[in-house]
Amino acid sequence: MSPPTVTILGAGAMGSALATPAATAGNRVRLWGTWLDGDLLAELRGGRPHPRTGVPLAPGVELHDAGDLAVALDGADLVAVAIGSDGVLEVMRRAAAALTPGTPLLLCTKGFGRRPDGAVDVFPPLVAAELPGAGPVVAVGGPCKANEVAAGRPTAAVFAGDDRTVVARCARTLTTPAYRVACSGDLAGVEAAAATKNVYAIAVGFCHGLTEAGGEPWHDLAAATFTQAVAEMRRLAVAAGGREETVLGLAGMGDLEVTSLSGRNRVFGARVGRGEPPAEALAAMAAAGQTVEGVPAARLARDLAARHGLDLPLLAVVNRVLDGAPDAAAELTAAVLPS
Amino acid sequence: MSPPTVTILGAGAMGSALATPAATAGNRVRLWGTWLDGDLLAELRGGRPHPRTGVPLAPGVELHDAGDLAVALDGADLVAVAIGSDGVLEVMRRAAAALTPGTPLLLCTKGFGRRPDGAVDVFPPLVAAELPGAGPVVAVGGPCKANEVAAGRPTAAVFAGDDRTVVARCARTLTTPAYRVACSGDLAGVEAAAATKNVYAIAVGFCHGLTEAGGEPWHDLAAATFTQAVAEMRRLAVAAGGREETVLGLAGMGDLEVTSLSGRNRVFGARVGRGEPPAEALAAMAAAGQTVEGVPAARLARDLAARHGLDLPLLAVVNRVLDGAPDAAAELTAAVLPS
Repeated sequence: MSPPTVTILGAGAMGSALATPAATAGNRVRLWGTWLDGDLLAELRGGRPHPRTGVPLAPGVELHDAGDLAVALDGADLVAVAIGSDGVLEVMRRAAAALTPGTPLLLCTKGFGRRPDGAVDVFPPLVAAELPGAGPVVAVGGPCKANEVAAGRPTAAVFAGDDRTVVARCARTLTTPAYRVACSGDLAGVEAAAATKNVYAIAVGFCHGLTEAGGEPWHDLAAATFTQAVAEMRRLAVAAGGREETVLGLAGMGDLEVTSLSGRNRVFGARVGRGEPPAEALAAMAAAGQTVEGVPAARLARDLAARHGLDLPLLAVVNRVLDGAPDAAAELTAAVLPS
Repeated sequence: MSPPTVTILGAGAMGSALATPAATAGNRVRLWGTWLDGDLLAELRGGRPHPRTGVPLAPGVELHDAGDLAVALDGADLVAVAIGSDGVLEVMRRAAAALTPGTPLLLCTKGFGRRPDGAVDVFPPLVAAELPGAGPVVAVGGPCKANEVAAGRPTAAVFAGDDRTVVARCARTLTTPAYRVACSGDLAGVEAAAATKNVYAIAVGFCHGLTEAGGEPWHDLAAATFTQAVAEMRRLAVAAGGREETVLGLAGMGDLEVTSLSGRNRVFGARVGRGEPPAEALAAMAAAGQTVEGVPAARLARDLAARHGLDLPLLAVVNRVLDGAPDAAAELTAAVLPS
């Protein structure tokens, strides 16, 4: 019996990283790069480390260029989708015809999108709507930094979907001694937690920026911000149809912890906390190829909260600071300390 | 009307730090040093920064030597107890005769102790047992680093006690624009969370030590460890008679976050994670005057868990590593990643 074929869409940090457990677990692995990933594929073809993880691609992984989407998908037993939130629906539309109905889609994209009626939603239903007859969609959450997954360091992931048998099959396909997967039935909760943790990691980043700017720790404020973040993530997850306990586990608190320790959302928040105007920090990071998923997610989370009548003071602070409010420390102090 | 008198017992980091909000809030403040604090008082009398916080004492605070305990306590409206877990009961015995019945005791000591029957308990009932007729005891929790409280940076504290009126009065006495106090009725939960967070910050520290040793991040494992820590803290708090929601707020998750960002328990854990034998790391820190409260608390928490039949794999890992188990990374991987 030949091993399963795993096709990974997106050759960015997380796509290339997932090739490590996928290959280590004994699958045949294909990595497809989007029309923006040509330079990344060239580095990997040259045997050099991935520019965004610093880790070479796992041995034996087949590389496919943007034009070879149908070839990359042909006969795949599992398709992992590791495209940014601004491109994922377009890639899904292009992939639709080549996807075999019933092939699970493992969705790594994090964030919120909009339904055709304008309402904010998590990505699995939005992706499914682009793919009539394809799927099912399984969401990936948990504290997983791409560089650590790529390097094979110990990582806990959470796979979530409506069909427990499918989720368990995806987990078995990718589990290795280092990459360990917990299965969940709370797809909405995992997605909402994954999207909102990026927003709140920006807020924790503000505090780390204050620390870096002054040379004195603002850890007390960072910890109070973290606590308020988890409280608001619980409420947002419930509003999105998910469960509070999901937020209190690896997919929520755990992912917020790792995102607050490192990653682009924390880095962006810290730049702003140090005093850089948000638009300048965002432009500088975009120029370096770094998307800050928490910025659009902050806007969409605000809409989601408003639709459900939720008063979330820390979410409001992130949005106000993104809009140019000058004193992040005072904003946070008012929002996260006891009154 | 003359301002309230606040007496702080213990001139270590947290005792001297509390003098900042106590004085800023307009109280008359006395700081009493134990028989081990003579050098610290000498520094403060010389106008120099406190050796453990790097911050000078708030202006106007009266200093009292170990022999002046009765003088320091005379007429106090509020007594804050900021003595280490190994000395607090002895100080309480000495203070008993000088305490006016009904004067609230604000207890900053963190950890577990043993009742006369040998059972593990949190400190408020142990302290109360030393002081027939004195009290009531109000516990202090939340993400409060002494150096930040001393410097007047924004901090959230949690005061907990059985009598809400007393707790609210203590909070009003010490609240400032920077030091903000949430009131709680869950004394057992706040105390259990405060004690166990030190244990689990050691575990998170192991991961940061692995990062420091190898130069590559082990943040995924740190975040999974953090998540498992909060899950186990919930169960221990319930076993100690407290509430899960307390652990999910400032006094639990928030305090674990700040303790994992900095502090002696994290530092100790990181030294061990880098490969230093626990006994050597502990001895080196003790020689520098640094008590690692999480080490005795790990032993006592294990006893508490055993008495309640709780299976807490991460607590077991901390104890095994303290006992010399050689591979913290493998131990953590087995305990905190999905199986």
